[in-house]
Amino acid sequence: MMIRKGRLLTPGPTQLLPSAQLAMAGATMHHRTAEFRALYSKVLADLKVFVGTGNDVILLTSSGTGAMEASVANLTSPGDKVMVVSAGKFGERWEGLAKSYGLNVDVVRSPYGETVTVQQVREKITAEHKVLFMQATESSTGARHDVEGIARFLQGSNTLLVVDAITGLGTTRFNIDAWGVDIIIGGSQKAVMVPPGLAYCAVSERAWQRMETTKNPRYYFDLRKERKNGAKGEASYTPATALVAALSSAMDYLRDQGGGDLAAGRELLINNAEIAAAMVRAASNAMGLKIFSASSPCAALTAITAPPGIDSSDIVKGFRNQFGSVIANGQGEMKGQLFRIAHLGYYDYADTIAAIGALEHVLAGLGHKLELGSGLRAAQEVYAQRA
Amino acid sequence: MMIRKGRLLTPGPTQLLPSAQLAMAGATMHHRTAEFRALYSKVLADLKVFVGTGNDVILLTSSGTGAMEASVANLTSPGDKVMVVSAGKFGERWEGLAKSYGLNVDVVRSPYGETVTVQQVREKITAEHKVLFMQATESSTGARHDVEGIARFLQGSNTLLVVDAITGLGTTRFNIDAWGVDIIIGGSQKAVMVPPGLAYCAVSERAWQRMETTKNPRYYFDLRKERKNGAKGEASYTPATALVAALSSAMDYLRDQGGGDLAAGRELLINNAEIAAAMVRAASNAMGLKIFSASSPCAALTAITAPPGIDSSDIVKGFRNQFGSVIANGQGEMKGQLFRIAHLGYYDYADTIAAIGALEHVLAGLGHKLELGSGLRAAQEVYAQRA
Repeated sequence: MMIRKGRLLTPGPTQLLPSAQLAMAGATMHHRTAEFRALYSKVLADLKVFVGTGNDVILLTSSGTGAMEASVANLTSPGDKVMVVSAGKFGERWEGLAKSYGLNVDVVRSPYGETVTVQQVREKITAEHKVLFMQATESSTGARHDVEGIARFLQGSNTLLVVDAITGLGTTRFNIDAWGVDIIIGGSQKAVMVPPGLAYCAVSERAWQRMETTKNPRYYFDLRKERKNGAKGEASYTPATALVAALSSAMDYLRDQGGGDLAAGRELLINNAEIAAAMVRAASNAMGLKIFSASSPCAALTAITAPPGIDSSDIVKGFRNQFGSVIANGQGEMKGQLFRIAHLGYYDYADTIAAIGALEHVLAGLGHKLELGSGLRAAQEVYAQRA
Repeated sequence: MMIRKGRLLTPGPTQLLPSAQLAMAGATMHHRTAEFRALYSKVLADLKVFVGTGNDVILLTSSGTGAMEASVANLTSPGDKVMVVSAGKFGERWEGLAKSYGLNVDVVRSPYGETVTVQQVREKITAEHKVLFMQATESSTGARHDVEGIARFLQGSNTLLVVDAITGLGTTRFNIDAWGVDIIIGGSQKAVMVPPGLAYCAVSERAWQRMETTKNPRYYFDLRKERKNGAKGEASYTPATALVAALSSAMDYLRDQGGGDLAAGRELLINNAEIAAAMVRAASNAMGLKIFSASSPCAALTAITAPPGIDSSDIVKGFRNQFGSVIANGQGEMKGQLFRIAHLGYYDYADTIAAIGALEHVLAGLGHKLELGSGLRAAQEVYAQRA
């Protein structure tokens, strides 16, 4: 028997940054003080750099879904025609959200594990669609959607583009101002390495203008109110102060890793996820496993199809019981059929190679034929070439 | 480029237990309060179970060397004849300590990397030797000495036995009461997973009696005074309260891991170190490396000889620069010739397999011929058989 340390290898919540944990533990500020206003303003400025935008960034005390709801509530009026790009559970969340706000929803759908092309959008979209909602990376399948392609296609049209990049930010390169992304959404429990509880979004001028006339109800998620208060270093309602302190610390860590340049730190984070993803994919191939979204895999996580005859729930259990590590099962209709290993945020070489080693033992224990060490060797070769 | 997390793979200080870190951060007690007395008494009782002894345990705010000095100062008088078992840097520390207290020191010596046999002791020892000082595990070479053999040989003689088990406790099975070990010494920064600053030792009745007549000076390290105060839950001088809180938390962790039985938790810790050591040794052999103390390796750490033409300092640097991990160089005359990877304390499968993967990359980068993955495969096979 060996010691089993608890590790989160899930695509959110992710492994915590120790310095952020300490900042969180030490945060005893009141939120209506000059001290907190300075911290809040600093975090909002940092997030602009992290997102890579000149647009204002709004911070919300909510899960990422709260910011998704804020986009729907602020940008639409009941009966508005909108389009949703859907190829997984989070695409379906856009559908559900849009319907709950009384919108007239058209869906461009691809099967789980695939992506939605610009061509598919082109065939369905009309001038009547007020907003297009999509994911940058579909966390339920590990697929990456073509944000740049769809954004550039929509440029000049009347359709606003809202991108859930909750697992996309920090794992994918975006140039949202040049491409014309109107709202992009992130969450604290993802690549930015702190616990759940904060969402953030960058909002374009075009989106702010749209909010002047839209009629759907919003109160807690009123983005214009947050923008006004944010300019003074305040949140409209009591913010999760300790999480704000943690997020500030995580931004400092990335700036430090980037040699004083937060954007360079974000680039390291993306490179890191890409190398980890490449290691896990090479290992999976060597072990005879199939990457679920092989045609367009994202770097945030890898979704792997369970081998024939093995329930992915047993792979998840094996990780937890034998190694103390939490990986993610398939979601929705994919439960039992695939498992997901995260690369977004605070994972390094050691975390990645160890996850691969554990996967070999778990699969071998479940009867999957593999040579111990074969996945590890493939991952070592990727690391030697790329790192 | 990937993120590089800092990891201590050194045989002390070792990786910290997170719950102990939190206990340490939260410890704001005054040391002359009922609250702290209860904590101190609890830790002393826990340490008795951890050491596996009916003897009183003394806690000192010092490094392990402080408890070594306490043994010398309390058990001897100037001019006393003593024996030291020495086959490495820490054996030499006993020599230096004994000489600094005016003792007449005989040394039973073996070369670095080897052990000292009972027969060697038998050939040199006489009734005049008041104390024999030895290591359980020689951290500078990775060798394990025969504590049981030497203890049983000394039974019934007038020679007290003092064992530096600073890296031995929690990595080696001892039955000190049955064998007749008069003082055994541990340190907080080793298998018990907290930072440096506390030493502990278990003292036999025979040793307490000896202290009644010995004449060497002692004040801060006066063990009889600590025993008296310890019985009331107090330390004689201001103790490192936060470290005591951390140590208490570490004992709770081990008790919890042992299903409510601290001794079973210690057994898990020993098994853990043994499996990690076996993984690293199998990997080393597969990579064409030589274990430095192959004849009698301990489980606390593995000392590995640097391949011909490679300076072990470059291996240490590679770990730090490429992976953020700290491994230990050779000490004293062994610097540059060997490197040491720890197994004692809070290391699990993931830490161990990742250290092996990193070692492959570091050695390959320094020109050592190896097939990437060969060490990992060997370690995977050991784990599959033993864990």
